[in-house]
Amino acid sequence: MAYRIGVIGGGQLARMMVPPAVHLGLEISVLAEAEGSSARLAATAVGDHRDVEAVLAFARGVDAVTFDHEHVPQPVLAALVDAGVAVHPGPSALAVAQDKLVMRERLGALGVPVPDWARVHDEAGLADFLADHGGRGVVKTPRGGYDGKGVRVVSSATEAADWFAVAAEGDGALLVEELVDFRRELAQSVARRPSGEVVAWPLVESVQRDGVCAEVFAPAPRAGERFEAAAADVARTIATELGVTGVLAVELFETTDGRLLVNELAMRPHNTGHWTIEGSTTSQFEQHLRAVLDLPLGDTTPRAPWTVMVNVLGGPAEGTLADRLPGLLAAQPTAKVHDYGKDPRPGRKVGHVTVLGDDLDDAVARARAAAAHFDD
Amino acid sequence: MAYRIGVIGGGQLARMMVPPAVHLGLEISVLAEAEGSSARLAATAVGDHRDVEAVLAFARGVDAVTFDHEHVPQPVLAALVDAGVAVHPGPSALAVAQDKLVMRERLGALGVPVPDWARVHDEAGLADFLADHGGRGVVKTPRGGYDGKGVRVVSSATEAADWFAVAAEGDGALLVEELVDFRRELAQSVARRPSGEVVAWPLVESVQRDGVCAEVFAPAPRAGERFEAAAADVARTIATELGVTGVLAVELFETTDGRLLVNELAMRPHNTGHWTIEGSTTSQFEQHLRAVLDLPLGDTTPRAPWTVMVNVLGGPAEGTLADRLPGLLAAQPTAKVHDYGKDPRPGRKVGHVTVLGDDLDDAVARARAAAAHFDD
Repeated sequence: MAYRIGVIGGGQLARMMVPPAVHLGLEISVLAEAEGSSARLAATAVGDHRDVEAVLAFARGVDAVTFDHEHVPQPVLAALVDAGVAVHPGPSALAVAQDKLVMRERLGALGVPVPDWARVHDEAGLADFLADHGGRGVVKTPRGGYDGKGVRVVSSATEAADWFAVAAEGDGALLVEELVDFRRELAQSVARRPSGEVVAWPLVESVQRDGVCAEVFAPAPRAGERFEAAAADVARTIATELGVTGVLAVELFETTDGRLLVNELAMRPHNTGHWTIEGSTTSQFEQHLRAVLDLPLGDTTPRAPWTVMVNVLGGPAEGTLADRLPGLLAAQPTAKVHDYGKDPRPGRKVGHVTVLGDDLDDAVARARAAAAHFDD
Repeated sequence: MAYRIGVIGGGQLARMMVPPAVHLGLEISVLAEAEGSSARLAATAVGDHRDVEAVLAFARGVDAVTFDHEHVPQPVLAALVDAGVAVHPGPSALAVAQDKLVMRERLGALGVPVPDWARVHDEAGLADFLADHGGRGVVKTPRGGYDGKGVRVVSSATEAADWFAVAAEGDGALLVEELVDFRRELAQSVARRPSGEVVAWPLVESVQRDGVCAEVFAPAPRAGERFEAAAADVARTIATELGVTGVLAVELFETTDGRLLVNELAMRPHNTGHWTIEGSTTSQFEQHLRAVLDLPLGDTTPRAPWTVMVNVLGGPAEGTLADRLPGLLAAQPTAKVHDYGKDPRPGRKVGHVTVLGDDLDDAVARARAAAAHFDD
């Protein structure tokens, strides 16, 4: 009997789980938000991930449920567990990913290096924090943010007034963090099985634009063994202590004074790991499936000295990515193209391109040139 | 608008076209022989590939039709072409792959080196050929053979009596070939677009057991530049002169006296090219999709010095491949596993394992050890 995996959410992360499922002989099904989702090939149901009945019906007959995103509400997760469904990552781990205040508290308790932060309930509290941190800070809504949404750099407490008004309807709190003076952003991914095995990929550098991942260089250039070991150690600690199952991506700041601080966590395959599809012996998508089914994890050795991933954000102003495909393939025969099957829309992640090479600058040039065919 | 590709036949070759279709953003659909086919994830219809109406209905709305096998009858192919469907490879090329006598005649006309052969209509004719070739020969039914079926080594004309009786119902002829004294078998794959572009992968060595591909070493060890160039030249010539579109695999004998002879052709992705999924910048399955959609072809540079593919023939005597997966993955973390989602049956191709490495012997050992987990 083949292993059966059910994925809640039909975005590009679910889509990219399909190829390794096909290769490994796993039966994959997807609960998509709507018809025509990015993962439509494997979609066996369309339904709302907040709808307990829809989710329970979908999960019937699968060996494990996992996720395209971290937004499934805790009561729905609890209902799955109560019904005897293996849920990975589990509710208690996801609770940490779902609330940035909970995340900061848990990371602090683990002794993991993080930016200075505070839970603030009003403008006065925020003003105090800003005064103690050079007059500026990063305000974040605890829940629902992603890709730069729910994140705002402020230099005055009044700039968060609208968010306090909204927050007042909930428990009233916002997260504020110091504005870290960083040299660059890094990301460390690991995968962990329920039975405890953890493996790490190489530390990578990610270039963000407007809060969205734009490019990834693997491995992170000139990181040094000390940094690499520290990043892997932090990610292993978080995965183990929070009981994460599946892929955990840890976004990090490398500060100008040479420290490593944890910025964000994602408990799923992550944009900073897309390079692994071609660049690693085991991709993050294959590893995630293996991990959530509690199968032994694969080797993460890179396939080339350098792998460069460039996101396609928005896509062409007119027409589709497919219209641009012939020109791209003709110009860049070494580029690996990933089209998520989504309609172009400004800022939307609609695809990515990966290039492997012996020379970083050359790989970067080829990957950028390839991705540019999808832009205007 | 995404490119839409339709594949006739739901075997493992169609199955392995799914991952690159997902990555490239192509909409793939499959006409499968039955429910539960290897390519079931992409199957949009179940029907007989000899049924004109079923095939025409399936082909409606796709940009190109291609194949999991070469068995679609010429009248069905003609009906597709008449209906304005792009069919790749086309009927005239497939006619050569569908009949081994036609193939020998066309290859001979192209001046491609082939074993001595003859069209024989009765035991007397066969006896004459055997007498001229050391008393032994290989008799082949012109149509319908694959994986060692329809091929018989004989040392007496009476050994083919049953086949002559069957052949008498058709045009009466069998193919007989000299029994080639070969050192090893090689395979050369190329891909060709309708617009003419041809690219070649490295020449590989294939080890056959009972007429079935068992192992592939890529590139072919100690082949030498002269052999590699000759093999690529032969395959390019055949693809171009026969007007093949998509992947063409040419199976070759390296004779003990140092010649290269063409044994068989396949006009589709081929078992000897499965190593390209991980081992080449562009896999044969991605390349086939690009070629049949007349998209520019990809780079075929190997990803590692050596890639070794070992077939899983038959699978476990009891239970399924999935039962053996945990043990395999635990023991061989670098192995890439391909489970075709088919029920085990003696001799049946149910999966394969691929390993990349810097050392051939080491890669062979790891690939064999991995594949052995699926056997008894």
